[in-house]
Amino acid sequence: MKEHIYLDHAATTPLDKSVLNKMMPYFTEVFGNANSQHYFGRQAAIAVDEARDYIAKQIGAKPSEIYFTSGGTEADNWALKGTAKQYQKKGKHIIITKIEHAAMIASAKELEKDGFEISYLSVDEFGKVDLEQLKSLIRPDTIFIGIMMANNEIGTIQPIEEASKIAKEHKIIFFTDAVQAAGSLKIDVSNGNIDLLSFSGHKFNGPKGIGVLYIKTGVLIGKLISGGHQERTRRGGTTNVPAIVGIAEAFKIATENMDEKNAYVKNLRDTFIERVIKEIPSVKLNGHRYNRLPNNANFSFEFVEGESILFSLDLKGIAVSSGSACSSGSLEASHVLLATGMSEGLSHGSIRFTFGKDNTMEEVNYTVDTLKEIIVKLRKMSPLFKLEKGEIKNV
Amino acid sequence: MKEHIYLDHAATTPLDKSVLNKMMPYFTEVFGNANSQHYFGRQAAIAVDEARDYIAKQIGAKPSEIYFTSGGTEADNWALKGTAKQYQKKGKHIIITKIEHAAMIASAKELEKDGFEISYLSVDEFGKVDLEQLKSLIRPDTIFIGIMMANNEIGTIQPIEEASKIAKEHKIIFFTDAVQAAGSLKIDVSNGNIDLLSFSGHKFNGPKGIGVLYIKTGVLIGKLISGGHQERTRRGGTTNVPAIVGIAEAFKIATENMDEKNAYVKNLRDTFIERVIKEIPSVKLNGHRYNRLPNNANFSFEFVEGESILFSLDLKGIAVSSGSACSSGSLEASHVLLATGMSEGLSHGSIRFTFGKDNTMEEVNYTVDTLKEIIVKLRKMSPLFKLEKGEIKNV
Repeated sequence: MKEHIYLDHAATTPLDKSVLNKMMPYFTEVFGNANSQHYFGRQAAIAVDEARDYIAKQIGAKPSEIYFTSGGTEADNWALKGTAKQYQKKGKHIIITKIEHAAMIASAKELEKDGFEISYLSVDEFGKVDLEQLKSLIRPDTIFIGIMMANNEIGTIQPIEEASKIAKEHKIIFFTDAVQAAGSLKIDVSNGNIDLLSFSGHKFNGPKGIGVLYIKTGVLIGKLISGGHQERTRRGGTTNVPAIVGIAEAFKIATENMDEKNAYVKNLRDTFIERVIKEIPSVKLNGHRYNRLPNNANFSFEFVEGESILFSLDLKGIAVSSGSACSSGSLEASHVLLATGMSEGLSHGSIRFTFGKDNTMEEVNYTVDTLKEIIVKLRKMSPLFKLEKGEIKNV
Repeated sequence: MKEHIYLDHAATTPLDKSVLNKMMPYFTEVFGNANSQHYFGRQAAIAVDEARDYIAKQIGAKPSEIYFTSGGTEADNWALKGTAKQYQKKGKHIIITKIEHAAMIASAKELEKDGFEISYLSVDEFGKVDLEQLKSLIRPDTIFIGIMMANNEIGTIQPIEEASKIAKEHKIIFFTDAVQAAGSLKIDVSNGNIDLLSFSGHKFNGPKGIGVLYIKTGVLIGKLISGGHQERTRRGGTTNVPAIVGIAEAFKIATENMDEKNAYVKNLRDTFIERVIKEIPSVKLNGHRYNRLPNNANFSFEFVEGESILFSLDLKGIAVSSGSACSSGSLEASHVLLATGMSEGLSHGSIRFTFGKDNTMEEVNYTVDTLKEIIVKLRKMSPLFKLEKGEIKNV
């Protein structure tokens, strides 16, 4: 078994060696600026065109609808801020879910400063949006609906097809953040109901620092990063050729092996969930038992702190996440878990385990065994647990 | 001699093999999310901290003042758009030069839509700003002065020390775009007069897709890319660890070998300039003969189109740029050359040659020989040239 077990694939994934091999020539040999009108530039531009064409074809889009960004966060910012300003004459009302990624929530908060009004769509106890509530939130001045394809913390998959149809019926721009879904769920924008969609390379064994924003032809969008003629004058900055080659190759591998990979990680994940539920008392599986990303498990352990579990597992060589990695280092409760109706106390006892194609069943079993011991130990030290058991009295 | 000669180092540079070697482990082994609170995350965070510390030390800044971005263009956008909004209560007047990079000019145009007023500082025939004009443009509502350290097209070096002192005396935010200067000129922000400074990895044999914005402690700046807690909550997005390791290593190599490298490329460049001036009639050296980046030469060739020269050189295996690479693909005249007082006609006959440490004197001489032939041939076909020589009459 490996010395360090990585169960945090929702935070980031290792770059596939075959993807790195494909990127290699574009660092030192085919290093030209893709906008340059000479041999070196053309070689680079050809590689970028091929990458764009492949991604477009795979998601049912036109190459001219694929825009490369520095990652999912930039793509999310661009989608929301870029369209809000363009459609504000129609209205300044925006609907996003309570469980969107920090990139969307923070962008929405910025827009509030400029007089936009944000409605936050609720989710049920499993983290799924209510489409009836969505309909009821829509107003004549609603210009944007943003619902992530699958949640990064609890893995819940949203009814994007139905939601985007509702948006389309009301002529409202529909955006989905597919950052966590890409590589695990099939992405298809060909029916035209999705106007904007984002994803990021490093979530499916591609490189960091590269993302995609799909922008449907005809959607009005301003610039987030102004500059030269790159990305059809919509996103400035020297084209990141190796990263673009890398995200396309990783997307190809993820797409072509999706069913197989999903079955493999789902088997690991399901074994993990079943053993934890059976062998560790006072745990709650967050998100839905079945309607979730195949690699995601998220548990709340009563009477213990998630950070303590995380650090204890880390000492045993097991890497997991408490809440989303993006808000690690903060002690705020997870906004996603709170949105599912969980108490702040219990949400602090939550751990996300996300599996990858390099994990093994041996690692899964070692993790459950280790986790069991840790939970027992931590609960022994927990005043809340002693209180529950009647060993001490509330004062 | 190489089959293809690259004389477009201002557009981008090949990644140094030693930089790539330093980056390699961070793609596949130390691949963690630098914000994750476990072994994989800590290993990544240590690498990022080291990179940040090194860059800070080299430019006389504190590590907490170094922010990683996706490149120079994002850094420029952030510097201007991010501060404009924060200081708008004081005023909405901004001064930038007429020869700033497209990233700055386009960002300024965006701000004009929001009611900001932009004054464009002129330059002399050599591309240098006039500090007396700068003083005369300053108003009580001026909040931002942006002057690039060295120009990307004609290489002119600006009097940043004096300009930033003037800004400081008037308590105005001073920004310098050091994207083209970094790696060639010493950067030092330690006297405190520079508030914001940007540069980009791929201009000095580092990776594409990574840049730095120095933000002096106390400067108010909003977010361009909102999201999680990365970069002290000021710039969202998963930390691009390999690229950060790469930009620091490339900066180290460029800094430690600066004098040697500059002397080498300056010798190539000067030989090139001297031969072109001596051997090709009706040429004009753009920018200043001496006050320019060591690797830059920019010539206007009368009676011929720059694009024709570029394509002819490309057929002979020599890669150069007409105008800046960022505006290639457009037929607009270079805003930089126009700002130096050049006619639109002559500006269209301009070519930038930028040398690098991998170029040789043999390549320089081959380029001059080839260029001579091309100019003779193109002029033979040029109606303007025939008109000048009296071979045809203006009608």
